[in-house]
Amino acid sequence: MKSKTEYLTFNTDRQREYINITGQVAEVVADSGIAEGMVLVSAMHITAGVFVNDAESGLLADIDEWLEQLAPFRSDSRHHRTGETNGDAHLKNLLIHHEVIVPITAGELDLGPWQQVYYAEFDGRRPKRLVIKAIGE
Amino acid sequence: MKSKTEYLTFNTDRQREYINITGQVAEVVADSGIAEGMVLVSAMHITAGVFVNDAESGLLADIDEWLEQLAPFRSDSRHHRTGETNGDAHLKNLLIHHEVIVPITAGELDLGPWQQVYYAEFDGRRPKRLVIKAIGE
Amino acid sequence: MKSKTEYLTFNTDRQREYINITGQVAEVVADSGIAEGMVLVSAMHITAGVFVNDAESGLLADIDEWLEQLAPFRSDSRHHRTGETNGDAHLKNLLIHHEVIVPITAGELDLGPWQQVYYAEFDGRRPKRLVIKAIGE
Repeated sequence: MKSKTEYLTFNTDRQREYINITGQVAEVVADSGIAEGMVLVSAMHITAGVFVNDAESGLLADIDEWLEQLAPFRSDSRHHRTGETNGDAHLKNLLIHHEVIVPITAGELDLGPWQQVYYAEFDGRRPKRLVIKAIGE
Repeated sequence: MKSKTEYLTFNTDRQREYINITGQVAEVVADSGIAEGMVLVSAMHITAGVFVNDAESGLLADIDEWLEQLAPFRSDSRHHRTGETNGDAHLKNLLIHHEVIVPITAGELDLGPWQQVYYAEFDGRRPKRLVIKAIGE
Repeated sequence: MKSKTEYLTFNTDRQREYINITGQVAEVVADSGIAEGMVLVSAMHITAGVFVNDAESGLLADIDEWLEQLAPFRSDSRHHRTGETNGDAHLKNLLIHHEVIVPITAGELDLGPWQQVYYAEFDGRRPKRLVIKAIGE
């Protein structure tokens, strides 16, 4: 079995931001020399997520608005008694999920034609890490 | 390490439909000859999902209604400026998620007694693909 | 390829409960002897979930309240015609998801500093199983 692990660090300008990382995931897979396997893409924070969807700016704005509707900022979050102010970012992380697994077939990411891998930052403006791990043969 | 990859294509009659694919996933695992490993079941579209839940028709109708409540069709989706009309299907995909991983133990899907794997179509009436990939030994 | 499979059983006092199982997952990984790989943590029931988030009691109470808002108990669930009363637990399972995958790097769970693995019980007070499966080398 082969494996390859890489870490990315993001430091976004805005509190919430959606970054297409498909190229970086594909590079790790190419570097791994794996023909058949899986690659895990996982945020290492509890206020950021990873998802697969369309690289379309209108849709990304829709997603951002929808997440704020379903998991809005609330000044009365119990979590804020700790001094934090990012309770909503934890719930957005749970809704979107913090990881995806992409199949590797014939040495390439086996994604559909419109599928792109996104890092979703919900509490940015500071360094945040993500792990990409490929295993296979 | 062994691996086995199969693709399914769905062309549903209705726009939204929920299809039990547990038998097809089990077949891929049987064909793979893998005793211990994992199988990834992943929609290759951004308007379809995969989930594990109960094969109970009332529940499936509850799930469909609930998804329409949390991620309803909206005529004012920014995504619709592209000419598309399926903005809600993208959000339903994010809510349900597009993939599951099932453990393979002693050559079988290691699911609980009520767990069934479902393909969730949110924008059907056209060919849509799904990938099943097993790895292990 | 190495693999290791363990099952945990929970029998919670309350209907809904959130249990930190990071230590138990780390133990399976240590026992597996795997240096590089992945570990799957998956509820074997359709009314329980697994998620990764912060070990902070205020946040866990926020999460519980939020899940009840987005997937509330409804006496008119179609699923209840079967005699069940846990329709909401199925929807909470879909929202949180029933599994996570954690990377194994240098023989350890490759989690961020605040990431903890939680078992989320949505219909407890009876024995419920979870599978932990590590693969790698």
